[in-house]
Amino acid sequence: MKKFPHRSGVPGFRFAGIAGGLKKNGDKDIGLILADAPCAAAAAFTKNIVKAAPVLIGRKRLRDGCAQAVLVNSGNANACTGSRGMRDAEASCAALARELGIRQGLVLPGSTGVIGVPLPVDKITSAVPRLVRAASPSGAADFCAAIMTTDTFPKIVALEDTVAGRPLRVCGIAKGAGMIMPNMATMLCYIVTDVAIDRKLLSAVLRQQVELTFNRITVDGDMSTNDTVLALASGKSKIDINKVNSITYNIFINILHEVMKRLATLIVKDGEGATKTLVIQVRNARTEGQAKQAAMTVANSPLVKTAFFGQDYNWGRIMAALGRSGAQFAMDRVDIFFNAIQSVKNGQGVERNIPKLQTVMKKGTIAITVDLKAGAQSCEVTTCDLSYDYVKINADYTT
Amino acid sequence: MKKFPHRSGVPGFRFAGIAGGLKKNGDKDIGLILADAPCAAAAAFTKNIVKAAPVLIGRKRLRDGCAQAVLVNSGNANACTGSRGMRDAEASCAALARELGIRQGLVLPGSTGVIGVPLPVDKITSAVPRLVRAASPSGAADFCAAIMTTDTFPKIVALEDTVAGRPLRVCGIAKGAGMIMPNMATMLCYIVTDVAIDRKLLSAVLRQQVELTFNRITVDGDMSTNDTVLALASGKSKIDINKVNSITYNIFINILHEVMKRLATLIVKDGEGATKTLVIQVRNARTEGQAKQAAMTVANSPLVKTAFFGQDYNWGRIMAALGRSGAQFAMDRVDIFFNAIQSVKNGQGVERNIPKLQTVMKKGTIAITVDLKAGAQSCEVTTCDLSYDYVKINADYTT
Repeated sequence: MKKFPHRSGVPGFRFAGIAGGLKKNGDKDIGLILADAPCAAAAAFTKNIVKAAPVLIGRKRLRDGCAQAVLVNSGNANACTGSRGMRDAEASCAALARELGIRQGLVLPGSTGVIGVPLPVDKITSAVPRLVRAASPSGAADFCAAIMTTDTFPKIVALEDTVAGRPLRVCGIAKGAGMIMPNMATMLCYIVTDVAIDRKLLSAVLRQQVELTFNRITVDGDMSTNDTVLALASGKSKIDINKVNSITYNIFINILHEVMKRLATLIVKDGEGATKTLVIQVRNARTEGQAKQAAMTVANSPLVKTAFFGQDYNWGRIMAALGRSGAQFAMDRVDIFFNAIQSVKNGQGVERNIPKLQTVMKKGTIAITVDLKAGAQSCEVTTCDLSYDYVKINADYTT
Repeated sequence: MKKFPHRSGVPGFRFAGIAGGLKKNGDKDIGLILADAPCAAAAAFTKNIVKAAPVLIGRKRLRDGCAQAVLVNSGNANACTGSRGMRDAEASCAALARELGIRQGLVLPGSTGVIGVPLPVDKITSAVPRLVRAASPSGAADFCAAIMTTDTFPKIVALEDTVAGRPLRVCGIAKGAGMIMPNMATMLCYIVTDVAIDRKLLSAVLRQQVELTFNRITVDGDMSTNDTVLALASGKSKIDINKVNSITYNIFINILHEVMKRLATLIVKDGEGATKTLVIQVRNARTEGQAKQAAMTVANSPLVKTAFFGQDYNWGRIMAALGRSGAQFAMDRVDIFFNAIQSVKNGQGVERNIPKLQTVMKKGTIAITVDLKAGAQSCEVTTCDLSYDYVKINADYTT
């Protein structure tokens, strides 16, 4: 497995990103992914009860596992916009379908931005011809720019491998920033690949990998109304991966996992105001659910997050978060390590290591390993710290 | 029911608070409540699995529902301190018991402050004679000062009523600030009353009122290892309230509720860095549990809290928090009001009210009322916003 330049493209796909006037500052805000032909498609959507119009439409259109185009805007989430929001999303997709001469059901909408404001649908429909003309195999970076909101850097991961001398490519493009939480809050991720895969199998492997990657990151515990991870497979490589657990299948799964894992980590690194990446691993919990619950509770604790921002060595806040997580354990058996240096032994601080641990607090990435000694199940969650800038970004966002 | 000056005291009790050198700045840090004789006592403790030594000892000593003295220190939580922490708390209580000439089991310990640092027990034991000498019926303010940590103002509520011409008094003293959450995180509250009440009944009414008051406030969703609400009843008023639902009983319950509710609200007002008080009421949920879960999810959402800090009118974040709360409802039926001005009608923003709602965002206290139209159960939760100062206070706390 190795990186490839995303400008060299993924066979079967073109991308575009243009400025359509939805972002006040004139940045790119309308993006397109266009497949040469209808192809296998699968998605995982937000579990939030409050779902944006594009999520409701995308879910319906993906029932047949087939799509050809993705039309995404930033600057407006088209969420909590009622029947008007549904009509607006459908009208945007219809304009694109007409321009492309394809069936409307093959177009999937996506939106990210402020909630509860009607979508400026005219801006989108009038930009469609220009958007289609701009589509190019090398346009992933433009598409990525068009879906960004408070992101501070683009998130594109392109990895390939070879099967019997032929290349197999997976390219993922994501936006994240705030409101990231298990079940993928305010996060859009589009994955394109040239493998040939059955639509049902694509759906199954996507869900499996979402659980292992995007559902194990969190920025602030919030979950958005718009989260989507969508995968499209063109089949252009003629590499068939439908034989589960075959060598070819495993090569594909490994690449897919790595693309999604790296994108998830990039999203945390770009968490709103983040200055540190925290990798929290809970080991030896009684159940896998308790391991995840314990790791997530530590990851989302404002007291834990602000301590790391302040580079303040304070393991007591981790113990307190573990203790309220719902995981079952004996407090006098817990061990905690920061970057492999022992911080807590059997529930009490290891005083001789404090100078070393204070040094660890200055690192940009810190691995916090918790051994509950209560069972045999583990879970790793990645998060970031909570800084002044998180408050600043989110206190000012809509104004 | 009316206020009384806490300096005039509650018959049967004396209070003290002195500086013992646990706080580096020389502020008061050791407090005492002393009853004239053993009296009825009950407490509600943290539900965190990680419990501080004084909680473990207090829980054990209260099995007989009887106590005479409470010894509390700030500056050190005596949590995650293992068997040494237990010995230290016992030694502190033993020193007080010796000084008073009472049985050690009648002394209840309490601690608040940094976790995982051994209690400076010598400072406490050597301060005990001075502490006892300082005890006075008018000393509630001293006791209150001695239990404060990051609190910015003292929290004392003293209310009385009359029964057949005789006064009945309840005085509550609390500390809070950060880490406040249902189940009473990092919060100490001591309530004294002169009614005559059976210890089992005292325990039952205390638990009932904790659920209706302290368990319905939250600052940051964290829960501490030390939380305690303790009530002591001297019986000195000779007013017997053991007849459940009698007029006298109801007078007492009303006063107790009001003391606890007012203290809970003061704790939220003094939430770390708080600039606003948010009263979130969820109406017409399917179950009471869902009503509470929905209100708590909104109250603990960092995105909601930062929006209020920024005075940024953003109802979409409330909808998003409701949608991930676990409460069941139809998103296109939800109504939301800010100080009785309608913000959301059937899941969509009420645009004509935006100017009025932007004005509401500038208020110090904002009532957010959510009607889910999914059932008949309600719950009200009080919280505060999330500001730069929350981050500052918590990034720097132990250093």
